[in-house]
Amino acid sequence: MIKKIDHIGVAVKKIEDALPVYTDGIGLALERVTEVGSEGVKVAFVPAGETLIELLEPTGPSTAVAGFLEKRGEGLHHICFEVDDIDATIADLKGKGVPLLSNEARQGADGRIVFIHPKAGHGVLIELLEKPR
Amino acid sequence: MIKKIDHIGVAVKKIEDALPVYTDGIGLALERVTEVGSEGVKVAFVPAGETLIELLEPTGPSTAVAGFLEKRGEGLHHICFEVDDIDATIADLKGKGVPLLSNEARQGADGRIVFIHPKAGHGVLIELLEKPR
Repeated sequence: MIKKIDHIGVAVKKIEDALPVYTDGIGLALERVTEVGSEGVKVAFVPAGETLIELLEPTGPSTAVAGFLEKRGEGLHHICFEVDDIDATIADLKGKGVPLLSNEARQGADGRIVFIHPKAGHGVLIELLEKPR
Repeated sequence: MIKKIDHIGVAVKKIEDALPVYTDGIGLALERVTEVGSEGVKVAFVPAGETLIELLEPTGPSTAVAGFLEKRGEGLHHICFEVDDIDATIADLKGKGVPLLSNEARQGADGRIVFIHPKAGHGVLIELLEKPR
């Protein structure tokens, strides 16, 4: 069961350059900036209603976001839906033959996550997240 | 004042091919499909919490979405924030030197809209929408 769009990930070269259009420009507020070592990114969290805009700046050249920037340039990177039960969701998707990027959920910064293969998403990288209760 | 993310636009070649991952796959429901002649797109509306996923299929080769598909392929296309007053927002953005794609708001399918230039959005096409009261 999808609860909402938890966040939209945006690949940027430098948070300090990309952030102002959201804050000074359209008046959203920066909540915090965190480094997520396991993902090789620095993340700026900008709430908009029930969803976060997450600006993702790579912390090194051999990270997933750095690879995306090189191939596609800056822009919308992924969309993350919050689910109530990630294990049940994964079992369900596997049963339906939807290809995933990992065989089971792994621990992300905000909870347990899995990604649907972007080919199945027709070019959209779809993340599913179960937040801790 | 931003109220929420109204929708996320996704460029697809064929709605019927791209839709199933959202419906059969992760269990969202298709609300409706509409053709927006002025934009040259057929749009599938899929609500997720307070936000809509909008799958955008071009109705002809010389449309904005067809151009996007040719250049970038299928994937996330734009993000639309709902504002309470589009004219005040435009005046404010102009005062701050934020470049827009049109000089004033125009009528879209859901209300009055304007786009921020994707260069200012660091590769993200940002739409602003005031819905009719």
